[in-house]
Amino acid sequence: MRADSLLRQIRVPIVQAPMGAGPSTPELAAAVAGAGGLGFLAAGYKSADVLAIEISATRELTDRFGVNLFVPGPRAEAERFGPYVEGLKAEAADREVGEPRWSDDDWEAKLKLLRREPVAAISFTFGCPAAEVVEGVKEVGSEAWITVTTPQEARIAAKAGADALIVQGHEAGAHQGTFDDAGAGEAIGLLALLQLVRAETDLPLIASGGIATGAGVAGALAAGASAVQIGTAFMLCPEAGTSQPHRRAIAADGPTELTRSFTGRRARGIANRFLREHRDAPSAYPEIHYATAPLRAAARERGDSEDLNLWAGQAHALAREEPAAEVVARLDAEARQALRAALRADS
Amino acid sequence: MRADSLLRQIRVPIVQAPMGAGPSTPELAAAVAGAGGLGFLAAGYKSADVLAIEISATRELTDRFGVNLFVPGPRAEAERFGPYVEGLKAEAADREVGEPRWSDDDWEAKLKLLRREPVAAISFTFGCPAAEVVEGVKEVGSEAWITVTTPQEARIAAKAGADALIVQGHEAGAHQGTFDDAGAGEAIGLLALLQLVRAETDLPLIASGGIATGAGVAGALAAGASAVQIGTAFMLCPEAGTSQPHRRAIAADGPTELTRSFTGRRARGIANRFLREHRDAPSAYPEIHYATAPLRAAARERGDSEDLNLWAGQAHALAREEPAAEVVARLDAEARQALRAALRADS
Repeated sequence: MRADSLLRQIRVPIVQAPMGAGPSTPELAAAVAGAGGLGFLAAGYKSADVLAIEISATRELTDRFGVNLFVPGPRAEAERFGPYVEGLKAEAADREVGEPRWSDDDWEAKLKLLRREPVAAISFTFGCPAAEVVEGVKEVGSEAWITVTTPQEARIAAKAGADALIVQGHEAGAHQGTFDDAGAGEAIGLLALLQLVRAETDLPLIASGGIATGAGVAGALAAGASAVQIGTAFMLCPEAGTSQPHRRAIAADGPTELTRSFTGRRARGIANRFLREHRDAPSAYPEIHYATAPLRAAARERGDSEDLNLWAGQAHALAREEPAAEVVARLDAEARQALRAALRADS
Repeated sequence: MRADSLLRQIRVPIVQAPMGAGPSTPELAAAVAGAGGLGFLAAGYKSADVLAIEISATRELTDRFGVNLFVPGPRAEAERFGPYVEGLKAEAADREVGEPRWSDDDWEAKLKLLRREPVAAISFTFGCPAAEVVEGVKEVGSEAWITVTTPQEARIAAKAGADALIVQGHEAGAHQGTFDDAGAGEAIGLLALLQLVRAETDLPLIASGGIATGAGVAGALAAGASAVQIGTAFMLCPEAGTSQPHRRAIAADGPTELTRSFTGRRARGIANRFLREHRDAPSAYPEIHYATAPLRAAARERGDSEDLNLWAGQAHALAREEPAAEVVARLDAEARQALRAALRADS
């Protein structure tokens, strides 16, 4: 790790995961940063203009934050998602199903914005950005982090010039950052993945997936991570924009599943009616995301958790309702204690 | 943990996983025990008489070993496995498909044998033994360990009187120890599962699944485990009875999957033709195990790895061909180093 690298500058090795569509807010990012960690904004599904406003709002509170970008993928063939979307329309009765369409999520405009308004780090998800893009990020003083879910992806990301890798395990809530969703194999558990990725590269690793306690933080650090990325464990914080039905589901102990039903890309959510009835959903992102968006918005409005994407990691039942700064302080203190205890027991 | 507990008596917190149908041998158990860990014999699929011979052979080499038992489950309805077995017969052409049948794996006779010939620990898989069985194990001075894959199972096992829990993650090779395979949800990653189980019980935990390096050992210990159970990382050792096609598959880096195709119970193996062509296999164990047994035996005989159950954990590509004692010593030294490094970095 470079002596001046971002992960060395943060006092607490906890990165707040970018959580799209609500939970991530400038307040949450600032609270985590204020407690010694690193905050993150989720740029996905937002226009570059909206992102610009969010960056300004966050910068008034802290400088210690990053932005997560979705790397655009290929268009899916209409045959791939057509029958699924037709089925949704048949089920939906009088409810609105959206038009399945492709989008690049305002990729170029966001990259341009982030050159004008550099942040501490840009993390990339859903693919490996071209080496020129990575170079551009570094030129303005940001670090480039790339999310990987296999040792093969780690090798590609290292070659593209990443400063650090976000190593995302099977346990993680919401979307898997897999480069090619359609060709994805079974997701790899975080502890196994950290070992496999370390065999490929010496880059700093940020462990992500199912980390909800200090013991979990300690486990990831001992397994070779320089920091952890935590999402679900922040979702009940008052600073998070998590919806009420989503909060209730997180606090209960229902099982989670990887599903393509809501967006056409594998993501982990708490099992509900919609997920269970659409286990056959095809790989077609973002087409299916746009098709189900009105259904999800309507469900959110009527407070119906059975039709909502209840993104959550496998350890969601351990999330607590407390201010984000307290989560960071508690996990950090517990992690040190856990490392010391393990070392004592093992000598 | 009791001051005299078995996990305190072993110098190195590494337990060799019981690996049925070949890999586990008295020599492997003795080599791991000799290096300071704990060896294990796999009693599954063996008669009590054959197990007795294996116990005697192992006892000539070491006293520091345990025996793993399969807890008998319910019979499956013929409608559940019938169509699958008929399909196998249609594909098999002139090859022999076995009669699907239920068995209790000689349960009572093995329990009786282990009362007459007590070993250091008996670990249970596929269910929670009755409290009387656990009590009987303890009466003769053995420890009773129960394999769990969810926090709910951990609660049940603690109530039954277990001395320790084997916490088996999604990453693990071979069978998941799930109490009810038919009702199993998505397997939980090891690091998340350790945190979830710790919230249920203060029992000593033995972490299992995808641990193949010292960093992996350190990660599990820091996350709260008292020891780790390692299987696949011993499968290339000269002391292991692993078949040649299986060794070649372990040493390569092919992806693994959870599959019911070979035995009717979820187990992790390296993806090959048979696994890929039977992703729809039903939950019916041991009926399907007996149906596919002759097919697998024939494949092993002709050295055909495409029709074999290539059990392996997700980190199998990290296994090395070296004596078991060297694996234990290397992982132990690396683990201490990893814990010290993590503590230094985090303070």
